[in-house]
Amino acid sequence: MAGRMAAAVEESYTELEARLARIADLSRIARVLSWDQQVIMPPGGAEPRAEQLATLGRTIHEEFTAEEVGRLLEELRSYGESLPYDSDEASLIRVAEQDYEKARRVPPELTAELARAASLGQQVWVQARAESDFAKFLPALERNVELKRQYIDCFEPAEEPYDILLDDYEHAMSTAHVRAVFDRLKEELVPIIQAVAEAPPVDESFLVGPFPIELQKEALLAILRPLGFDETQWRLDPTPHPFASYSGLTDIRITTRYLEDGLMALFAGIHEFGHGLYEHQSSPELDRTTISGGVSLGLHESQSRLWENLVGRSRPFWRRFYEPFQRAFPEVLGDVDVEAFYRAVNRIRPSLIRVEADQVTYNMHVILRFELEQDILAGNVELRDLPEAWNARMQEYLGIDVPDDAHGVLQDVHWSAGVVGYFPTYSLGNVMSVQIWEALRRDLPDLDDQIEAGEFAPLREWLRDRIHRHGRKFTPQETLERAIGSTIDPEPYLRYLKGKVAELYGV
Amino acid sequence: MAGRMAAAVEESYTELEARLARIADLSRIARVLSWDQQVIMPPGGAEPRAEQLATLGRTIHEEFTAEEVGRLLEELRSYGESLPYDSDEASLIRVAEQDYEKARRVPPELTAELARAASLGQQVWVQARAESDFAKFLPALERNVELKRQYIDCFEPAEEPYDILLDDYEHAMSTAHVRAVFDRLKEELVPIIQAVAEAPPVDESFLVGPFPIELQKEALLAILRPLGFDETQWRLDPTPHPFASYSGLTDIRITTRYLEDGLMALFAGIHEFGHGLYEHQSSPELDRTTISGGVSLGLHESQSRLWENLVGRSRPFWRRFYEPFQRAFPEVLGDVDVEAFYRAVNRIRPSLIRVEADQVTYNMHVILRFELEQDILAGNVELRDLPEAWNARMQEYLGIDVPDDAHGVLQDVHWSAGVVGYFPTYSLGNVMSVQIWEALRRDLPDLDDQIEAGEFAPLREWLRDRIHRHGRKFTPQETLERAIGSTIDPEPYLRYLKGKVAELYGV
Repeated sequence: MAGRMAAAVEESYTELEARLARIADLSRIARVLSWDQQVIMPPGGAEPRAEQLATLGRTIHEEFTAEEVGRLLEELRSYGESLPYDSDEASLIRVAEQDYEKARRVPPELTAELARAASLGQQVWVQARAESDFAKFLPALERNVELKRQYIDCFEPAEEPYDILLDDYEHAMSTAHVRAVFDRLKEELVPIIQAVAEAPPVDESFLVGPFPIELQKEALLAILRPLGFDETQWRLDPTPHPFASYSGLTDIRITTRYLEDGLMALFAGIHEFGHGLYEHQSSPELDRTTISGGVSLGLHESQSRLWENLVGRSRPFWRRFYEPFQRAFPEVLGDVDVEAFYRAVNRIRPSLIRVEADQVTYNMHVILRFELEQDILAGNVELRDLPEAWNARMQEYLGIDVPDDAHGVLQDVHWSAGVVGYFPTYSLGNVMSVQIWEALRRDLPDLDDQIEAGEFAPLREWLRDRIHRHGRKFTPQETLERAIGSTIDPEPYLRYLKGKVAELYGV
Repeated sequence: MAGRMAAAVEESYTELEARLARIADLSRIARVLSWDQQVIMPPGGAEPRAEQLATLGRTIHEEFTAEEVGRLLEELRSYGESLPYDSDEASLIRVAEQDYEKARRVPPELTAELARAASLGQQVWVQARAESDFAKFLPALERNVELKRQYIDCFEPAEEPYDILLDDYEHAMSTAHVRAVFDRLKEELVPIIQAVAEAPPVDESFLVGPFPIELQKEALLAILRPLGFDETQWRLDPTPHPFASYSGLTDIRITTRYLEDGLMALFAGIHEFGHGLYEHQSSPELDRTTISGGVSLGLHESQSRLWENLVGRSRPFWRRFYEPFQRAFPEVLGDVDVEAFYRAVNRIRPSLIRVEADQVTYNMHVILRFELEQDILAGNVELRDLPEAWNARMQEYLGIDVPDDAHGVLQDVHWSAGVVGYFPTYSLGNVMSVQIWEALRRDLPDLDDQIEAGEFAPLREWLRDRIHRHGRKFTPQETLERAIGSTIDPEPYLRYLKGKVAELYGV
């Protein structure tokens, strides 16, 4: 009898695996289509591509929310609970059930309406930003916020409505928890930013180039290759907005943005490499399941920031790579020594645009958005008053005046696409990156020497073993705790930032 | 009562359209994935991509062969028959029913087995060709042929088993009909080829270049743009095997193969443009239906060959384009006048490899394969004896000795992938291209002047109106007859080839 029962369970599990493999394949296909659209599609492809993505999204939703999937999950629940929590099987059943419950709650009509409003909103936003015209953007924003409220209403009431939005990007983390972390950051960072503003600035005059773009591409690849970028399994392409995508564990695609008057492409390229590596090093055992790959946006960002800032803006890193880099740009960098370069790429200076912000002020851009999003949902700010609220906080947190809405409230695409609750994950990633960095430095006491020798395998292996291979088996905070022994904590990050500031500005 | 009936029919038709739109989207997605794989995917992507394509193929098959589709088609049959035969609605219902009947006949297990054997066969073939080792290839070939027999058995017996295979590529055309056309070609071409072999050769010494590849790319684009290639809706990329694909009417992607020692890239690029234009000019009314796009491989090839040979190897064409082309390659072409160039790119010379063959001998390569395929199915040739049969026919038809199987029976990928019945469409396309050319020249008496003036819009419009816009509404031969008033007929093509031979070789 037990044998027959086991056979039935095995059959159900095999069937669930097969159905999820199909979902995983279709989801990867959607990524390839989206990559194609952003990287190489002729503009004329936009309309048919929108239909293809809509069809694919509908197909994925229907296949995943099929009654049969619910029946299989029901049949497998007690089996899953009988297995060790961290086994692949138990995790697959547990996470699939969470995903299924969530997917079933949102009616397909609302999902379609959200997608339509997002698409329209982005179109309006492009124009509104170009013309710095918030009034033009307002109706689209109102529609997106209204739909977000309907989305929230699909779920059991949470402690705060924002919890429901946040959960899509940082599963199982509460708004209150984020607020506690951010309040602590704010408390320390605002005075630091004020102090830096009064200190003598770091020389960054040479960072405006010109850096010829073809040479930048070569220089970036020369850095990415020792990091782990391998042309047989990776691609690097130019796009207006850098991003990372993938078609499989062995087909990772990153992009960056080249500008002649700066080194954004370099650091964005290393950043996206960090995202790509997280996907690349997911366990092959989880391949073609719905729990393969990065667990949350916050953890993902911890990986990209770790490579961009903790590796890519470190002294040992530039001791390794500066010499050939300097040789590639003799006119601009010929007279700049490695120490001056190191200081320049670590400089802190309040600025208007989030994506151009330094390591310290970046967080205040995020906190500002996180707070406004909550004010919007709570009705504490009228949408038409959003520019004033934005500008006031920019003055309060960064001490700068916003000249127009294009450089203020209209700068980011997120709200135009109905994406609310996403911003905080950027700073959560910053915070976690330093916690992870401290833990791995304890295990890899020779890390600085390894970096200076161009040996990145030990670092990659640590990240694979502690974080990457687990995919989505655990919640983000469980994943972090298993990796380093503690959940999110802003103190290591604050210590790191204070150290940088003290080193560079003596404050 | 009639009103209620009409409403029910309308509802069924809308539902059918929606389901077919989904199939059409998913099929286009498969094309994008395949394009990606051939053009830009890192090699590591092969394994996940195979899974993705298998999942997508299964999804398309399941969605299309669903009972509900059969029910809708049943409900709509008499409605479709009540409409004019050439209306979009009647055609959609009629063709969808044919596709449905066909798709339902092949069990999914056999489809999967065919795909697996094709994939394995191609892998073995790559090695066998590299080593010129037919014995290594034989077991894979035997498996593919065995599966093809099983595939044939899924259908009602036809006049000849080959009819069933041919129907997948050239719907509703019988083997007997093809044989009649080919026997006529053979009758005329074999003596022509013998006569040309004895005539003084045309000077083609300068066609071996060197033609630097970057310059070839520019020169090809400079030619394709006036033809109708528009970067906002088209892409051109390099691949080992030239092909055309598309993601939608306004996202057409062609590739070519650049070699420094020849102009293959140029003519292959114009050839693929012809394929791309056929898809590009399909009626927008048929967009996102399963009857959009080229109706058959033969008609498709008629379009690519029309642009490659009848436009791209014509005097007026080179009167337009030779001067800048010559300037791009001064070292090689500086002393070559337009007439000498025209003669060289039209030269006739028996050779071993089909894809490198000229306009006359190409057909004998095809007829040889067509005849061997029938001998194989009829059991008239043992597979292990295929190389001898191949070599004997090469001697008989082209008067040349095959030095090894890599340059003989192993040269093409088709049989390794279980593709049987495809080869004849190449020559059917050649034959139809000249019939179409004669018809359009009657309607466009100034065509030569237009080509020499770089005006290709009238030609494109004629092709759009007479052929391209109809998509798959009619059978291939119906499509041809509607365009030019007659079905396939080898005589115009033979007249054209004899004219070329007389002009160039005086025989």
